[in-house]
Amino acid sequence: MVASGICHTDVFLSCIPSGVPGIEYPRVLGHEGAGIVEEVGPGVTTAAVGDPVLLSYTYCSNCDLCGVNQKQYCLNWDGLNIVGDKTLNTAGGDAVQGKFFGQSSFAGQSIVDEASVVNVKGTVNNEELKLLAPLGCGLMTGSGAVFNSAKVKPFDIVVVTGIGAVGLGAVMAAKIAGVKEIIAVDRIGHRLQVAKELGATQILESKPDTNLTEELQKLAGGGRISYIFETTGVVGVIQGALGALGKHGKLLQIGVPPMDGELKVPLYRLMNQNQGFECIYLGETTGQEWVPKMIKWWREGKFPIEKLVKFYPAKDALEALHGMESGVAIKPVLVW
Amino acid sequence: MVASGICHTDVFLSCIPSGVPGIEYPRVLGHEGAGIVEEVGPGVTTAAVGDPVLLSYTYCSNCDLCGVNQKQYCLNWDGLNIVGDKTLNTAGGDAVQGKFFGQSSFAGQSIVDEASVVNVKGTVNNEELKLLAPLGCGLMTGSGAVFNSAKVKPFDIVVVTGIGAVGLGAVMAAKIAGVKEIIAVDRIGHRLQVAKELGATQILESKPDTNLTEELQKLAGGGRISYIFETTGVVGVIQGALGALGKHGKLLQIGVPPMDGELKVPLYRLMNQNQGFECIYLGETTGQEWVPKMIKWWREGKFPIEKLVKFYPAKDALEALHGMESGVAIKPVLVW
Repeated sequence: MVASGICHTDVFLSCIPSGVPGIEYPRVLGHEGAGIVEEVGPGVTTAAVGDPVLLSYTYCSNCDLCGVNQKQYCLNWDGLNIVGDKTLNTAGGDAVQGKFFGQSSFAGQSIVDEASVVNVKGTVNNEELKLLAPLGCGLMTGSGAVFNSAKVKPFDIVVVTGIGAVGLGAVMAAKIAGVKEIIAVDRIGHRLQVAKELGATQILESKPDTNLTEELQKLAGGGRISYIFETTGVVGVIQGALGALGKHGKLLQIGVPPMDGELKVPLYRLMNQNQGFECIYLGETTGQEWVPKMIKWWREGKFPIEKLVKFYPAKDALEALHGMESGVAIKPVLVW
Repeated sequence: MVASGICHTDVFLSCIPSGVPGIEYPRVLGHEGAGIVEEVGPGVTTAAVGDPVLLSYTYCSNCDLCGVNQKQYCLNWDGLNIVGDKTLNTAGGDAVQGKFFGQSSFAGQSIVDEASVVNVKGTVNNEELKLLAPLGCGLMTGSGAVFNSAKVKPFDIVVVTGIGAVGLGAVMAAKIAGVKEIIAVDRIGHRLQVAKELGATQILESKPDTNLTEELQKLAGGGRISYIFETTGVVGVIQGALGALGKHGKLLQIGVPPMDGELKVPLYRLMNQNQGFECIYLGETTGQEWVPKMIKWWREGKFPIEKLVKFYPAKDALEALHGMESGVAIKPVLVW
């Protein structure tokens, strides 16, 4: 492993106590890995020893939804990505839960699923792997949502709530797509400045008492908010944002809400305005399909991820986590 | 006008008191019309005098959403379809609100928008117009939702709640698409028998105390319910059905809920299962695109609408309404 991004999903899932079905400790998390292939198993054709690879989620390739190219909704997704299996060992030889998201990338060496592998031989040199590590999850999730789920048009006004790596992926993609307005919302001013640099046309620094519905509608200036990319998972934010949707608008829920979170949907308004609420995964694409696209944008200067990545030696993982919490590091990347 | 279907939307909208913005009386409702062109305005190219036509909703052709072929979400939809304009007169010469859904088809003669017109010259004879009148709204709404919104696959288990014309349109379309199971739900047994004849593989006669979530999951036999076509607009039905959705399932809301209806969405479950809730109009298509398709299916015996249509002389409109309420007439059609 050369590097691995840290994502909120790592934090969220590491907080689930053991005893919950499918959750076993010790386990190795991490799911935005980048590395060099050291060995391949029998039948592997995607990569050979020495190839630089970026890693993404895995999928079974055999279920109904994989069969219609909806691999992000693979019917075996949870087992393969969240549970994983006992492919890793401690130094002492004890089995450890690995293959988290097919990769368990918080490790100097790991065993990964072939379906997780995006071979970037000939496109990316070994040094660049560090910076590109986070492409396989957060940035793909945000940018894929804009193109694959929303399929935005130049007349769209879009809102992005939560300016982490997922939100910034959405901001950069919306700029590439050339939408009319990009309104970025966060509680941390520094993140909003980065959003502005990357393409946000309006920013809203929200406080606990902000009336999100009203403020968003004000920023839209009477225009129709057509898509909201909701990456915070905060119930109040989701509720407030939903209220700001314009005719035929859709709220795309990307951030994971709390277990007991409840949204109150005013049915008649949604019907009358033909609106929708949809929970989507992973930019509705695969690493194989989307990572090469993001690399191309990056080379063209349209996807400047260097503005959100902050490197930490792998041994300083805890510091990296705190950096993510405080907003100092939008996308912390561990390097070995 | 040769004939006009009656739809619940006529009933619903005729109950809105005057004084509500855009609602003026007297007005002529009706929006599933069929007739023969008697005169055309300047610039009309869609039809000529003597042509048999079926009528559907209208749209502006000029807004952002019309421009990307989402005419069912035309940004001027409400004004054009719900409000209409003063194009009609009483016998005494007083102006009357017409152009409801571009047509105001509850009238022996009407003035209709060109965008509402589906010219069926050479495909449909004048006698057949009577039976085919309802194609332009309810049947298009149900069958279009299956193909255009859900894009069902053979492995899908679908649920249709509410077996009126919209629901039966969905049942027939789901059968044509060859889905795995079609579960029909209604409170009236007679309607469910028709659903069975038309393609439902399972039926559920619901009572006020039915636990819809549990019963639907039982009928799906552990399978994944992938789409629910909700045509009742009843809050309890929507809530119960939502709970029965399987992984990556979507509830497509088609029936109009009451003004104060509220849906409680368990956010984490929807996220964890990648589910969605979307309010859709008119099968996400146009009369021009969809009516010819339904006529083709009907000729092939796959869309036997004669099983749900019941004719009434136009003067017996009130009896037709009562027939719809009691379930005797799934789709009452007035004939002149």
